[in-house]
Amino acid sequence: MGRYDLALIGFGGVNRALAELMSRNGDRLAEELGFALRVVAITDLRAGSLVDTDGIDLAPLLAAEPGELSFAGLAGGSADPRNEWVIREVPADIVVEATFTNPTDGEPALSHVRWALESGKHVCTTNKGPVALAGRALKRLAAERGVGFEFEGSVLSGTPVLRTAERMFGGLEITGVQGILNGTSNYVLGRLEEGVELSAAIAEAQELGYAEADPTADIEGHDVQLKVMILANEILGADLRREDVFCEGISSLSPHEVRDAVSKGLRWKLVGSATRHEDGGVDARVTPLALPAHHPLAGICGPVNGVAFHTDLLGTVTISGPGAGRTETAYALLSDITAIHQRHADDDSAPTRLAVKETHRV
Amino acid sequence: MGRYDLALIGFGGVNRALAELMSRNGDRLAEELGFALRVVAITDLRAGSLVDTDGIDLAPLLAAEPGELSFAGLAGGSADPRNEWVIREVPADIVVEATFTNPTDGEPALSHVRWALESGKHVCTTNKGPVALAGRALKRLAAERGVGFEFEGSVLSGTPVLRTAERMFGGLEITGVQGILNGTSNYVLGRLEEGVELSAAIAEAQELGYAEADPTADIEGHDVQLKVMILANEILGADLRREDVFCEGISSLSPHEVRDAVSKGLRWKLVGSATRHEDGGVDARVTPLALPAHHPLAGICGPVNGVAFHTDLLGTVTISGPGAGRTETAYALLSDITAIHQRHADDDSAPTRLAVKETHRV
Repeated sequence: MGRYDLALIGFGGVNRALAELMSRNGDRLAEELGFALRVVAITDLRAGSLVDTDGIDLAPLLAAEPGELSFAGLAGGSADPRNEWVIREVPADIVVEATFTNPTDGEPALSHVRWALESGKHVCTTNKGPVALAGRALKRLAAERGVGFEFEGSVLSGTPVLRTAERMFGGLEITGVQGILNGTSNYVLGRLEEGVELSAAIAEAQELGYAEADPTADIEGHDVQLKVMILANEILGADLRREDVFCEGISSLSPHEVRDAVSKGLRWKLVGSATRHEDGGVDARVTPLALPAHHPLAGICGPVNGVAFHTDLLGTVTISGPGAGRTETAYALLSDITAIHQRHADDDSAPTRLAVKETHRV
Repeated sequence: MGRYDLALIGFGGVNRALAELMSRNGDRLAEELGFALRVVAITDLRAGSLVDTDGIDLAPLLAAEPGELSFAGLAGGSADPRNEWVIREVPADIVVEATFTNPTDGEPALSHVRWALESGKHVCTTNKGPVALAGRALKRLAAERGVGFEFEGSVLSGTPVLRTAERMFGGLEITGVQGILNGTSNYVLGRLEEGVELSAAIAEAQELGYAEADPTADIEGHDVQLKVMILANEILGADLRREDVFCEGISSLSPHEVRDAVSKGLRWKLVGSATRHEDGGVDARVTPLALPAHHPLAGICGPVNGVAFHTDLLGTVTISGPGAGRTETAYALLSDITAIHQRHADDDSAPTRLAVKETHRV
């Protein structure tokens, strides 16, 4: 059985959950997926960097409290994240980027992805920033280097949205997409329907772990804006920048307005949409909409997210599922690695170092 | 570009819609899918049979009124459907079975499928009967002969349910499925919520073309029962027979009961479900359920159908879309042919006659 060596960039919730899956279910996963996984490097802003080209023992790292983890004292460890050196020089097959999202310029994640692709390494990421802001350039770079660049988890965590669009609709035309793309705002809207005030609903979402300490990006639609760019660019072939996507959040909606709509059979949702016009142009926007009950997104409640694909031959097909979550997002990375395996395992054009290594059964 | 020669068994709504897609969009489809399609035989209970191994000109057949079509007078035509001879002897690559569903023994569709597989031909079908009642044996036969047997359209027409389960969830475990699998009953339940009586709602569904002349199979759950068998057997690896699946329809629900539930935040739905238990056994049933508003199937309205996959790593992922429709179901056949192409185009083990023929660009 072949094996992929991973470099984990960022060791917060998502990459830690991926390490947990590998540590707990590694044998079952390898059996089912047809390849084994090993971590040879980890970098993290707080913990530093850790490299072991014979494979890092993950269990002791996962036993430590996340906030207290430090690689400084360990063999192959350093207090310095050394991201560029690790990404460029450590002989990993796949770089797994899961640092924080920077919606302005995508950095430093954008550089992480670029360094990895330049070094001839496959990349998978859950990070919206690089995908939304530079997806086209990064895909071109990956194609030039003959490596994979996968990012299913940048939208709806592990719920397969981008890959469904790519693989399940051959022979038909997707004319537009609409999505509920942010769990916090969707949860908050549900609570407004029940008469809770905005600030109280946001506090609840924070307590439940849905919302960030600063909920602005969730409530004002900026998080959805990045995701709409990804959907429009990936699925409809657009090349939108952030300023091309009109963005209005939910902070101007009153509980009264939201409740009143329910009595008329309408449900307010924060909808990100992208539509291809006859001239080939793509219009994308983020805006609260009062959806009629029969709309396929109207019934998507709480932290669940969903995307409706509008097509020529099938009408509307909708997929819904978790929009966030550590394990759910780590699963997206696993599905990305599987996609890389399916596309590149027999790829003679890839550098030999990237070929799946033969190894003993894990 | 390669080409597949098709034999269409049954020339009712679905195979006719497939012929329309080929006739109208053949060039665009070939360009996008990477293979061309040609029809070399058609059989139909009423129209007879028509064979032309150089390719049948579909346009004149599609110009005729469906009820008035007869192959008797045409070159290569006969008033006799000659199903067995056509399926076994005409050198088609793929037999496309779209005759009526017989829920008791699956015939004659089951024989059509078996004859085709025995003759070393790929099969795709939208027919629930053979898949639900003999899917395991037919899959074994197909594997023995090195040919494809695909049936995405047997559940939710072209909405990709079976293929999503097969291809999108690698590395996780599907522990159960629940579905709204019949558009007629779902439409009728929606009308009951609005206070319409059952018989009036059924009459409306018939007028709208959702319901058959005899709506019993839709209303009493027998149609859903076959689909649940397919989901349980395909997705959960069960081997259920019809008598293993408890079946209760919606005829015992009163409009009052259905309306009253709405006021309590519940929606009655006819749910087909299959669950794998710890001991590996699978329990499957069809029964009306009052679903809470946040249930992923609660918001699926009218003729739309949906399936919720319950998984270990992702929680619940739901896909919804058209449950019926001529073009929508024909699209399922197109997706089946694409799947056959992806799996078998380079397949040396398949008989040479089945290899994709090289041809001029269509």
